[in-house]
Amino acid sequence: MAMFEKITVLGVGLIGASFALGMKQKGLCRHISGFGRNRENLEKAKARGIIDSFETAPDNACLGSDLILLSTPVGSFIDLAKSSSSSFKKGAIVTDTGSVKGGLVAELEKIMPPGVHFIGGHPIAGSDKSGIESAGGGLFLNAKCILTPTRCSNGAALKKVSDLWAALGAKVVTMEPAEHDRIYAAVSHLPHVISYSLVNAIAGIDPSYFEFSGRGFRDMTRIAGSSPELWRDICMLNRENLIEMIAVFRQNLDSLSRYLRTSDGDSLEREFGKARTLREGIGQN
Amino acid sequence: MAMFEKITVLGVGLIGASFALGMKQKGLCRHISGFGRNRENLEKAKARGIIDSFETAPDNACLGSDLILLSTPVGSFIDLAKSSSSSFKKGAIVTDTGSVKGGLVAELEKIMPPGVHFIGGHPIAGSDKSGIESAGGGLFLNAKCILTPTRCSNGAALKKVSDLWAALGAKVVTMEPAEHDRIYAAVSHLPHVISYSLVNAIAGIDPSYFEFSGRGFRDMTRIAGSSPELWRDICMLNRENLIEMIAVFRQNLDSLSRYLRTSDGDSLEREFGKARTLREGIGQN
Repeated sequence: MAMFEKITVLGVGLIGASFALGMKQKGLCRHISGFGRNRENLEKAKARGIIDSFETAPDNACLGSDLILLSTPVGSFIDLAKSSSSSFKKGAIVTDTGSVKGGLVAELEKIMPPGVHFIGGHPIAGSDKSGIESAGGGLFLNAKCILTPTRCSNGAALKKVSDLWAALGAKVVTMEPAEHDRIYAAVSHLPHVISYSLVNAIAGIDPSYFEFSGRGFRDMTRIAGSSPELWRDICMLNRENLIEMIAVFRQNLDSLSRYLRTSDGDSLEREFGKARTLREGIGQN
Repeated sequence: MAMFEKITVLGVGLIGASFALGMKQKGLCRHISGFGRNRENLEKAKARGIIDSFETAPDNACLGSDLILLSTPVGSFIDLAKSSSSSFKKGAIVTDTGSVKGGLVAELEKIMPPGVHFIGGHPIAGSDKSGIESAGGGLFLNAKCILTPTRCSNGAALKKVSDLWAALGAKVVTMEPAEHDRIYAAVSHLPHVISYSLVNAIAGIDPSYFEFSGRGFRDMTRIAGSSPELWRDICMLNRENLIEMIAVFRQNLDSLSRYLRTSDGDSLEREFGKARTLREGIGQN
């Protein structure tokens, strides 16, 4: 028996389409309805069997759905939830794939009609790639998926969302929305900002330098290819944590710069060695 | 006919061993002598056919060599050249694989005995990997190799060094030593320092955060696994350029932080978009 009769994917991009494909491949639902801003993309997704039907109004897409996934750029979640909540069926579960939780989860909980349960989620499977061309049902295999229940969360809904991500191969971890945002400001949002900044800083010196770059630079700047709109949303929604993380990073970089100015090679080597040991401990090169 | 009778590789690590393997595979020399600090590593390199013989004194390794390659960590080049130059044969070519040129090239030129020709080189084929385990004759295939001749350089020696890198599949580019150092401060040394710093900054906040990191973070910090000793040398030898590049990057990052503080999402998106377009222009994702 399928876990869900009908699922709605609001935002059929890399994450939404991969989720849909995974649900289909695992036989977890009978019908997937899609919504998005770009009709051509929705038609393509339907032709490829990623979704079974689509609507160009989000409320229509949600009619009769047992599970609604918000997977548009995170800045649009509130408007999208507001404009479609009237069609959420009683007992429906609403979840999301946004990279920011915190205040957003609290706001989304408030928008839910009585008897509709919101559970915040964040699969750690982003990429500089975007769009359905890069989507695949295996995207979440062995990826972490963070769920951020609150004291308002319905236990059965949490269990169901947790089970479905596990069924897609993800390793589910639950934590407080605020803790999530602090962690991801550090390990994801800060690196993105640094990567964008590194590219622009070098272009400001001399854009012709790029052609001399090697693999290290390409690794460091791969995520600067990520969607500007999506990352604007993420950074703005998590700005307080991110401002703090930038300051901590900047302080660290300043101390390296000071070692250079004072020709303190020993301290430089010590810091580099510390970082290498930590990095080796993370694994998954 | 082989290009060289005897080659000496001073420093049989990733780069030195890959160079030796490439030379053998292309039949460009008859005998390769190795030198290094670690006897066990030299024995392993000989057993694997990377080198034909080895010496534990660098001057002995260089006796009778037509081509001497300096491929130890760049901070040891001067001492190494000084302690072996008396055994350089007349007409020998000395070249290197150091990530810094500038003043180092000028110093090395001065150390050369009469009739011995130094040509500075830098194959762009580094990695967070090191050691002969990761070595391969194909490492330089399609990689850039920068040569930095000066007005003191012998034209025939430059031609020969250029030809041999081309024979290993590298795309040879020549430029001034000072220009090389400025470019690589920006596209290589700055990214390394940032990567080390990012790891240490996050560890300073909470090392448990690492386990929540995704692919973006791993890409950004891969080069923090690079040799601390090697990178101390590189940073110290190119410290003036690097200090400047850190300052430019810091200024750029500060402006992003300012946009966050003033909730200026439009400026953030514009900067991210600019970086993405630039990054896409670089290619080789």
